[in-house]
Amino acid sequence: MATAEVVVVNRKAVLKHHLPPDRVPKESDIELVATDTVRLRVPSGSTAVLVKNLYLSCDPYMRSRMTKHDEPSYVPDFVPGTPICSHGVGKVLDSGHPDFKVGDYVWGMTGWEEYSLITSTEHLIKINHTDVPLSYYIGILGMPGLTAYAGFYEICSPKKGEYVFISAASGAVGQLVGQFAKLMGCYVVGSAGSDEKVNLLKNVFGFHEALNYKKEPDLNKALKRCFPEGIDIYFENVGGAMLDAVLANMRLNGRIAVCGMISQYNLGKHEGVHNLLALIAKCIRMQGFLVSNYYKCYREFEEKVVQYIKEGKVVYIEDIAEGLENAPSALTGLFAGRNVGKQLIVVARE
Amino acid sequence: MATAEVVVVNRKAVLKHHLPPDRVPKESDIELVATDTVRLRVPSGSTAVLVKNLYLSCDPYMRSRMTKHDEPSYVPDFVPGTPICSHGVGKVLDSGHPDFKVGDYVWGMTGWEEYSLITSTEHLIKINHTDVPLSYYIGILGMPGLTAYAGFYEICSPKKGEYVFISAASGAVGQLVGQFAKLMGCYVVGSAGSDEKVNLLKNVFGFHEALNYKKEPDLNKALKRCFPEGIDIYFENVGGAMLDAVLANMRLNGRIAVCGMISQYNLGKHEGVHNLLALIAKCIRMQGFLVSNYYKCYREFEEKVVQYIKEGKVVYIEDIAEGLENAPSALTGLFAGRNVGKQLIVVARE
Repeated sequence: MATAEVVVVNRKAVLKHHLPPDRVPKESDIELVATDTVRLRVPSGSTAVLVKNLYLSCDPYMRSRMTKHDEPSYVPDFVPGTPICSHGVGKVLDSGHPDFKVGDYVWGMTGWEEYSLITSTEHLIKINHTDVPLSYYIGILGMPGLTAYAGFYEICSPKKGEYVFISAASGAVGQLVGQFAKLMGCYVVGSAGSDEKVNLLKNVFGFHEALNYKKEPDLNKALKRCFPEGIDIYFENVGGAMLDAVLANMRLNGRIAVCGMISQYNLGKHEGVHNLLALIAKCIRMQGFLVSNYYKCYREFEEKVVQYIKEGKVVYIEDIAEGLENAPSALTGLFAGRNVGKQLIVVARE
Repeated sequence: MATAEVVVVNRKAVLKHHLPPDRVPKESDIELVATDTVRLRVPSGSTAVLVKNLYLSCDPYMRSRMTKHDEPSYVPDFVPGTPICSHGVGKVLDSGHPDFKVGDYVWGMTGWEEYSLITSTEHLIKINHTDVPLSYYIGILGMPGLTAYAGFYEICSPKKGEYVFISAASGAVGQLVGQFAKLMGCYVVGSAGSDEKVNLLKNVFGFHEALNYKKEPDLNKALKRCFPEGIDIYFENVGGAMLDAVLANMRLNGRIAVCGMISQYNLGKHEGVHNLLALIAKCIRMQGFLVSNYYKCYREFEEKVVQYIKEGKVVYIEDIAEGLENAPSALTGLFAGRNVGKQLIVVARE
């Protein structure tokens, strides 16, 4: 068994230390390490899967994992000195698991390194469609896609003709929510943090209107301008002042899907939200959710969205960082709003 | 028709002026006027109902009506110089409406005066059960009762064995929510602002535990003490710091029925709520509601709760102010937490 002897260097991007809760992540918080080696076989008798990592995902929720929590969060804290973890797409190099074969492409939780031995395979998913870009499986066909799908269709209870507002609308989740809402016949407006992103929203994703929140001196007025009739559905990705402005502009029986609050992730004490009384007067339902509760409908989602992609009904924009060496800047860029579209890292293309 | 000539003095409690949004109502904001007269007949050909007001209600939402709003609220602003409006119980003295006969007892929106000519009769309800205290029809069998009923059973989606927390728990709505929750087999804790009220919660309403929020230096710790396993259902009546503490103690898939936020009603700018990120991690649904959407199930509710009362399954505590002259202090006392139980005013007993 000659292949059993293949041992290679395994470059890694590791978290150097836990961050305080009130600091923006810096590139220097993540260290590239090229001294470890890996044997390209799963241990004998194990049901693990050894993958070559191709694409790694940068997602806002990862910020929370960079800080040590006294009370456990819904995702475990990262361990300093070990690779960052995120969703990724990989190619199976060896497998002790009957559901995964050498040569399969898979997506799931992996490490920021060239090769990962995945021992927790319960959330590892075999990629059924290799005729779409594989990187889509950490975006439109992966966790962010399912987040948009479950968040919009399950949480927002959308109806044709309703007024829909999406914040962080050009991001991995937002761009899809907007396109799903358009397919349903809703009026769709998104906010983003640059003119380039606003342009994308209007001219690539087909939003009816978009606003650059950094250029709006008064978010309340900006929303009144875009929604003279008010907002039926708000897909919340940012929190803080935007949520307050939205609450002031919601319509009767409105729904708010609380997906994320990226504006708050680097604050020790989160900003106060002042307009919650609107929940009563407008009979608003505000619902937080986690995509992890919706994996049971993954295959249904996958087939539907693959079809949408092939028919050109949805498009997907990625912001691609080349090479593991650019992983630190890719992740930190997320919290500065530098990414345009879904941020990912290419470790290898094949 | 000699009775057509009966004209009597009609004492009134009128709002003197609109209040600024950031001031607690004072007794001197309401004026007793005893100069107007009223003819004790409905105008010929009208479908109005002339009632003698017996019991008048003091409810927290009325604070909002005392201020002039630039944008219309869900209830119209009071008009200075005219009687305060609230729910009330009255006896029909004359009627042009086929559904209401002389001698009937009714409840609905009325004026703070001895006699009211009710022209908007669509929400006037004939009282079916006169073998319970008539005043209950502005409390447990009226708007607050239906609020507790709809809010708990419809909005909270309660299940046996769940952990339920209620703020302003000895108030008109809170005392009922707690008793409904106990009937369902939930673990029930309430908060209130005095030891007398806490005693009531534990020894009269049968709550499992109760806390005096004014004596708790740390609301978060107080809730952790009462709910080591966390809170499944929060019935929100107060807002502000209590809501923040609750958010930090909610369990996975928790529900928050947002009924009121009395701690915020006299603040120009409402306090910020900082812990909304918990909505995501715990998949919490937070739902505002208005009782006006549930009048369709009023008769079903009335029969059920009358039965509960007769069987001794629920009790109801009222705080009774005697005479229209005590109406100003009754209403202002609500915002100082002076009332113990449902605050009402007796104008006449028969």
